[in-house]
Amino acid sequence: METLSEKILGAQAGSFSDKQIDKAFCHDGTGIQAKIIYDEMGAPGIVNPEACYVIYDHIAPANTSQTADLHRELRDFATKSGMHFSDIGGGICHQYMAEGRVLPGEVVIGADSHSCTLGALGAFATGVGASDMAGIWVSGETWLRVPESIALYISGTLGKGVEYKDLALCYVANLGMDGATYKSLEFRVDSTSEIPMEGRLTLSNMAVEAGAKTGLWYADRITREYLARYGQTCQDQKPHDEPFYTQEIWWELDDLEPCLAVPHRVDTVKSVSELAGTPLDQVFIGTCTNGRFEDLARAAAILDGKSVAVRTIVVPASQADYLQAATSGVLATLVAAGCTVCSPGCGPCLGAHMGVLGDGEVGLSTANRNFRNRMGVGASYYLSSPSTAAASAIAGEIADPREAV
Amino acid sequence: METLSEKILGAQAGSFSDKQIDKAFCHDGTGIQAKIIYDEMGAPGIVNPEACYVIYDHIAPANTSQTADLHRELRDFATKSGMHFSDIGGGICHQYMAEGRVLPGEVVIGADSHSCTLGALGAFATGVGASDMAGIWVSGETWLRVPESIALYISGTLGKGVEYKDLALCYVANLGMDGATYKSLEFRVDSTSEIPMEGRLTLSNMAVEAGAKTGLWYADRITREYLARYGQTCQDQKPHDEPFYTQEIWWELDDLEPCLAVPHRVDTVKSVSELAGTPLDQVFIGTCTNGRFEDLARAAAILDGKSVAVRTIVVPASQADYLQAATSGVLATLVAAGCTVCSPGCGPCLGAHMGVLGDGEVGLSTANRNFRNRMGVGASYYLSSPSTAAASAIAGEIADPREAV
Repeated sequence: METLSEKILGAQAGSFSDKQIDKAFCHDGTGIQAKIIYDEMGAPGIVNPEACYVIYDHIAPANTSQTADLHRELRDFATKSGMHFSDIGGGICHQYMAEGRVLPGEVVIGADSHSCTLGALGAFATGVGASDMAGIWVSGETWLRVPESIALYISGTLGKGVEYKDLALCYVANLGMDGATYKSLEFRVDSTSEIPMEGRLTLSNMAVEAGAKTGLWYADRITREYLARYGQTCQDQKPHDEPFYTQEIWWELDDLEPCLAVPHRVDTVKSVSELAGTPLDQVFIGTCTNGRFEDLARAAAILDGKSVAVRTIVVPASQADYLQAATSGVLATLVAAGCTVCSPGCGPCLGAHMGVLGDGEVGLSTANRNFRNRMGVGASYYLSSPSTAAASAIAGEIADPREAV
Repeated sequence: METLSEKILGAQAGSFSDKQIDKAFCHDGTGIQAKIIYDEMGAPGIVNPEACYVIYDHIAPANTSQTADLHRELRDFATKSGMHFSDIGGGICHQYMAEGRVLPGEVVIGADSHSCTLGALGAFATGVGASDMAGIWVSGETWLRVPESIALYISGTLGKGVEYKDLALCYVANLGMDGATYKSLEFRVDSTSEIPMEGRLTLSNMAVEAGAKTGLWYADRITREYLARYGQTCQDQKPHDEPFYTQEIWWELDDLEPCLAVPHRVDTVKSVSELAGTPLDQVFIGTCTNGRFEDLARAAAILDGKSVAVRTIVVPASQADYLQAATSGVLATLVAAGCTVCSPGCGPCLGAHMGVLGDGEVGLSTANRNFRNRMGVGASYYLSSPSTAAASAIAGEIADPREAV
């Protein structure tokens, strides 16, 4: 029987499908590249601007005159062509789209590798390059090879101080960086386990770290309740009894412990207890993986009344997350603890501003990638959950959040 | 009879004075230059590290690997040598020093042109270059030519929507960019006018824009009450009956109206009513001139329940200002209105990150300088008060705050 990818794409795994795109989005980095290609095509017009989003997150606000010039060019283009446009500070494209702009069953293409994040909403969401995005602008569609699927069955409940990010790191390590290449991950949850939308977004976000096209969740009550916050309604997506999975993996949440990806591979994961005491120069809490309000709130719960011992950068994923943190007291708690809170967006994740590391420095980040030199030439980065990041920020070294919560 | 400058420096105007430095500070930009010179001297040791402060504000958090490497070098040096060190996100050096770290009567030297800001506390505070700072590190003193003084007598009270920033712009325009070169400004207030410390800091901050060495206020009850917030005590500084001023200028606060410095000179000032309707691409509220909590609160009062029509960047001057904005609801109001709030520091003021303008773009800023290309190559910048900035952000063009409050 069919998988969710097959159902949404309307064709069997292995076949090729030309698909109308329901939502297409790019950011300031890929958007300007797509515009160059679009111009080279002779600027034939945007076929369905209502479906297209341009979202500034990568180097926003602009860090140089050159960036500002490119921002201006793309901003003018996006607004004049009738695309949706989210300016500096609106947030990371994936989180911005997740805030009621993507619905279950849609085909969603983003010009960013972590577009798989939106699979959490039951949409077939995947990333493409800038030239594909330009193609979508002018045609309204793209072609896809319908992926085979790997099932991740999840049961149980998380222990104290453990997060869905810990599962994300573990499943990537288990699959390996290319273990799911051109596959779809399907997250299947035991009926007794409730995984909130923020956890689903974190888990889907890292699907591409194992090479997957997307990381899908069947829309259910959690999805409906989440989308209702944005005035959206949807139908549940019922899984078929026996979808064909090329691989099935079981995860028991109760068995997980806090862990980290160690430099410089996402799929090399160790437990916090193995690494506790490793000195840190910087902690960064944010990104499309873990910059949501709930992530900041978990960090704040640990940092409440404490002080950070290393420089600690917090970047809310979106303006909405920032606002919720501001009105709930979470932001005040973080700032009182000594965190440096930057404007919503990707922050230092791509190494372009807002906290690049120096040569030889060691950082801990809640991001999804720790590739060599990504966040600073000659620097090393560990990846963890916000709870581990907060506990480590207080200690100034890698520390176990189970002792802090 | 002697002026406040003569009293603090203990010598007559025109004479040269070797002075022990009470507080010496630099930022990440000048600090690394001072360290290079210090190393060239053979690194002879810091004579009084307790008096020295290194404060990261200019490009903090780091925007590139190179910046991060320089940050690391200076951070290691400052902490190992026993200097006070304020890392990324702590705030702008002048504001950081103003938070209980400078006392009336002190001689305060900062390696930044706006060090005159701290004259608001009755300290002889002025800026030097990096080589002079290195000299202070190794000797604990510097030489100064005792400046002649210009008196600015202030009376009356500000009208609705008018701020001390409007007076700052007006007095700079009145004196001209070199009208007070190597002079000290003395702000003298009619006993019926109460000018709060945040207003004094704004007025002193812009003294250098007229070429002045510093902008002095006699310590009084306002100073005592302000310093008491930081656990500091001080004596009042009584002015002599007839200090010798080379020039005396009278300002009546009631006569002021909201105004702006127009591109590209600080001393070319026009009223908001003359410029109303000028389209804007970006508004920036922050800097050592106008990034204090009170500035953000005034902007928030205007933005409350409204939405900005252009991208609007807010940068609190210090972590303390940020925290006060977070706990008081001011931050939530600004974010709800659509402002992009960045981490404490200089923000885009120096054109290095966090909101550089593109070629041909027009910005409005609450900063103190609008020199050509400073905040973006080919861009133009107007300077105003936070109230004018907030009203203009809502309108998307220069707008009169008297119609918004």
